[in-house]
Amino acid sequence: MQELKDRIVKEGKVLPGNIIKVDGFLNHRIDTELMDHIAEEFGKHFNMDEVTMILTAEASGIALSAIVAHHFHKPMIFAKKAKSDNIEGGLYQSDIFSYTYKKKVTLLVSKEWLSADDKVLIIDDFMANGEAMRGLCDIVNAAGATLVGIGCAVEKGFQGGGDRLRAAGVNLKSLAIIESAEPGNIVFRGED
Amino acid sequence: MQELKDRIVKEGKVLPGNIIKVDGFLNHRIDTELMDHIAEEFGKHFNMDEVTMILTAEASGIALSAIVAHHFHKPMIFAKKAKSDNIEGGLYQSDIFSYTYKKKVTLLVSKEWLSADDKVLIIDDFMANGEAMRGLCDIVNAAGATLVGIGCAVEKGFQGGGDRLRAAGVNLKSLAIIESAEPGNIVFRGED
Repeated sequence: MQELKDRIVKEGKVLPGNIIKVDGFLNHRIDTELMDHIAEEFGKHFNMDEVTMILTAEASGIALSAIVAHHFHKPMIFAKKAKSDNIEGGLYQSDIFSYTYKKKVTLLVSKEWLSADDKVLIIDDFMANGEAMRGLCDIVNAAGATLVGIGCAVEKGFQGGGDRLRAAGVNLKSLAIIESAEPGNIVFRGED
Repeated sequence: MQELKDRIVKEGKVLPGNIIKVDGFLNHRIDTELMDHIAEEFGKHFNMDEVTMILTAEASGIALSAIVAHHFHKPMIFAKKAKSDNIEGGLYQSDIFSYTYKKKVTLLVSKEWLSADDKVLIIDDFMANGEAMRGLCDIVNAAGATLVGIGCAVEKGFQGGGDRLRAAGVNLKSLAIIESAEPGNIVFRGED
């Protein structure tokens, strides 16, 4: 998606440790018009008529997911993150490793709101190692629901998380896949 | 807002400890159409033309805020929550007490994205003790920005947070103020 790539090049900051900061429009300050354009783009890649639920993980994926869900008149769920102890019942859960916080966190979704009848599109703002996405896929499976696909705004292709999901047969669409990032030189993967 | 009150009565669950669960439409599973109706309602109470930024705190306020911000073609910021140690520079911060997690958390907003020119509408899904709102007001003040008001979907009136903000002169509009809640009997404050 050219508009998104242009914004990453123009406003993104490359920090040491392969960190790409896009917090001026994607995951701290949110450009809601851009989120709506991203929603439209996802609409070209996924059959939104069959989707019954948008699923994401807190916190930074929620804004994009809410606008995507609203755009296509769908409900959404955000998985909550919790420490692994003291989890109450009635929840689907999946343990993931958070590279941001360097610890294990548990993704939680109430069994009340996700069922075997659901056709789920997972949406997230950013994918690196793909741990959050793997955890959300686990939860979709645990519910017996159908995974329609994963729509991701920005994927760090060089960290491999997206390619592992593709190899596992997941219909993953990332709108900007960054292959390498140095200050002043961000290289994107070619369109598929 | 009658539609919201009806949903609370119909779908809300009152749990011991004055907990009112509305996670089927407001803060876990999100009814995005209802969020848009809430946005319209806020538009009747605040002069959206003057608002330049929607501000909320992660995580459960993000979905509503994103849809409100998009509805009125505004950008939004969500304050991040962090432990108080190890905070990097360039941030507005405010310490609040989280009754949910029973510990102090710090709300953080990058100085890069909020300035003295901003006219800020704070949006949140739920207010009880009002600690998160107080922290967000601190951050607006620290930025030298103007607080237009606070729009809250559900306020637990009996916990006093909202009334403290009103007494301090804040233009706070809550669309459903719960005065008392027992299973099968939720009482709302009359409209102002």
